[in-house]
Amino acid sequence: MKRLIIDMDDVIADATGQFINFYEMEFGIRVERESLNHQDEGHGFPAHHDVIKQFPYREKFFLTMTPNSGSQEVLKQLNKKYELFVVSAAMEFPQSLYEKLEWLKNHFPFLTWKQIVFCGSKTIVHGDYMIDDLSYNLEGFNGEKFIYTAPHNLEVNQYSRLNNWKEVGDKFL
Amino acid sequence: MKRLIIDMDDVIADATGQFINFYEMEFGIRVERESLNHQDEGHGFPAHHDVIKQFPYREKFFLTMTPNSGSQEVLKQLNKKYELFVVSAAMEFPQSLYEKLEWLKNHFPFLTWKQIVFCGSKTIVHGDYMIDDLSYNLEGFNGEKFIYTAPHNLEVNQYSRLNNWKEVGDKFL
Repeated sequence: MKRLIIDMDDVIADATGQFINFYEMEFGIRVERESLNHQDEGHGFPAHHDVIKQFPYREKFFLTMTPNSGSQEVLKQLNKKYELFVVSAAMEFPQSLYEKLEWLKNHFPFLTWKQIVFCGSKTIVHGDYMIDDLSYNLEGFNGEKFIYTAPHNLEVNQYSRLNNWKEVGDKFL
Repeated sequence: MKRLIIDMDDVIADATGQFINFYEMEFGIRVERESLNHQDEGHGFPAHHDVIKQFPYREKFFLTMTPNSGSQEVLKQLNKKYELFVVSAAMEFPQSLYEKLEWLKNHFPFLTWKQIVFCGSKTIVHGDYMIDDLSYNLEGFNGEKFIYTAPHNLEVNQYSRLNNWKEVGDKFL
């Protein structure tokens, strides 16, 4: 069985949508997702970048994210065909660890605790395929690399691109 | 720089000692460490195995462990010479994640969050050397494997053995 490594934020979880939600709760302005295109993660909002930076440290930021459309169904199928690992660089946000684990239990109940990895640097993991939204996570990986489209990675062109979970399914199933 | 992967429980943290402490708090009997030799982890106590099994789920079980003697000084030196990762199979105990991270900050402040990995199965990590007390963690590892002596692994003989942190230092520094 080939090993497939999948990221959480902005791959199976709508982290960008959560930044938009928290921004709206804080400042009363609903930002269009497209307006964040070609900006670094957490950038592209009208103002208050210093406050936005703090959103991931807030309670329930990770717990209440929406799964990306199609990720649950496709992951369930991938789980039968691949040795599947969900690998998240979560160590930067200590309070996220418990929330991320709960979130996975809630939305991906078919995954076991043996398939979950929270790390700092993803250079430590190895496998056959990696799907991630950040090129610095893909960079040091030994297997085949796929960038999952997010507003902050539209300029990345050195990796195969997957735009949505339909495309992930078409590629891997 | 060679990558050195080090386990937490019963390698840098005295997990066996913590089982003894919790047993004493619960049942008023201080068990001799040597009496646990050649028994599986959490076994070898006079009675109440069903209660002992629950200790790792209790608050502060991981947070209040004592670092193994010499581990702090030797790890500090290793950290200059190796690409060091602390990898713990912590996912089985969700409440341990935050406690383990706090514990590392308290006792190994020279480690950064980029060097910490909490996983379920250690087959996902790769490197040059791994030090662990459990042979099933070492089994699938691609690099050189070292078993760190604990009461439950005295019969393991297929890996190089390290009995204490003095020996780890002698071998790797």
